[in-house]
Amino acid sequence: MTVVAPDAERSAVGHAITTLTPLRVKEFSQGRQPVGYAINGTPADCVKIGVGSILKSRPPDLVVSGINLGPNTATNIIYSGTVSAATEARILGIPSMAISLATFVDPDWTYAAALGRRLGALILARGLPRKVLLNVNVPNLPRARIKGIKITKQGDSAYVEEYEMRHDPRRQPYYWLSGSYQMHDEDPSTDAWAVANGYVSITPVTFDLTAHDLLAEVADWGWKV
Amino acid sequence: MTVVAPDAERSAVGHAITTLTPLRVKEFSQGRQPVGYAINGTPADCVKIGVGSILKSRPPDLVVSGINLGPNTATNIIYSGTVSAATEARILGIPSMAISLATFVDPDWTYAAALGRRLGALILARGLPRKVLLNVNVPNLPRARIKGIKITKQGDSAYVEEYEMRHDPRRQPYYWLSGSYQMHDEDPSTDAWAVANGYVSITPVTFDLTAHDLLAEVADWGWKV
Repeated sequence: MTVVAPDAERSAVGHAITTLTPLRVKEFSQGRQPVGYAINGTPADCVKIGVGSILKSRPPDLVVSGINLGPNTATNIIYSGTVSAATEARILGIPSMAISLATFVDPDWTYAAALGRRLGALILARGLPRKVLLNVNVPNLPRARIKGIKITKQGDSAYVEEYEMRHDPRRQPYYWLSGSYQMHDEDPSTDAWAVANGYVSITPVTFDLTAHDLLAEVADWGWKV
Repeated sequence: MTVVAPDAERSAVGHAITTLTPLRVKEFSQGRQPVGYAINGTPADCVKIGVGSILKSRPPDLVVSGINLGPNTATNIIYSGTVSAATEARILGIPSMAISLATFVDPDWTYAAALGRRLGALILARGLPRKVLLNVNVPNLPRARIKGIKITKQGDSAYVEEYEMRHDPRRQPYYWLSGSYQMHDEDPSTDAWAVANGYVSITPVTFDLTAHDLLAEVADWGWKV
């Protein structure tokens, strides 16, 4: 196993990649054995440079992105660096999963870590179709209190956000994004409902963004050059 | 019309939003009339702060993201700040489109601008379903040479990328991402094929990333806690 990770928190970077500034790679070793690399970039950068450069001669069989501190469910997955890193792996043809622990405080990683190991083996055994990865969210509970594992859809919940205006010491205004997660998914087939109700959620996620259902309708809008 | 835009190039930022640093808003006026705002953030930030703060009292009917210099087609749309800004608008419930001119050099904006105006009116007249926006790519051609308008799917093409290692003046290594766009979409129903062959491509895009086709299959993998 090789760890390639951002050198600091990169929350909400989405699928950002770094093209305008150079990347630095810092190697960490145990004895003479390299065990990990810290990158001054985004999660997607880490996968790109990990697969394309650090591990170029021995590409990984599986990319696991996470375990993230905090859930990546519902609408929020499009902002998620965790999910984007797994997506990047899949673009590069490598099976992948994103895994997140659904808490911001007092994390207990035990069950999520054990489950992640089993899921990785399962993905390698079963295979994933093109353009598909698994997005896994685990409640912050001991195994005995997990109610089950649900295969879910991406929910509709989102942060309800506001900008808070403050003034700096030079009296100039600046804005902080502040928001609260509003859990309004009441559909038990969604990831957000599952995690809020003590289930592990596993959502198969794609990066084909085409709204296939709409193609015929939009084609009928009477287009002309 | 109100312009809210990043204060500098923000290529390949994907759906990044700024949560760890504050945002600044710089207003530009003609006479006493505010006409635009420059934000030290990402395209998605601009939509968030534009809708949630700058235009809070008079929310826009339509958000147009672009016209971007350079195509946003195929796999690359997941890295696209242009598409992400339109997606952010749709999350906020506002009809939206992303529009890009498919060139990096010698842009002629004339036709793209005229088409964008017509498309905006068409979206307002027809409406868009929940979670769907339009991603438009326009060849860099005068109207007379545009072959037609195609409603397309997101193609499979992607940049083929490498990291180029260099050494800084202190002899420390650093890496630049370098890549070339490989146009391998030969399917005429794709956005990348359409634009490369002189057509405007219009792809209905969703931010429901669930791989719905896979739900039943993955549910059958024999899950247990």
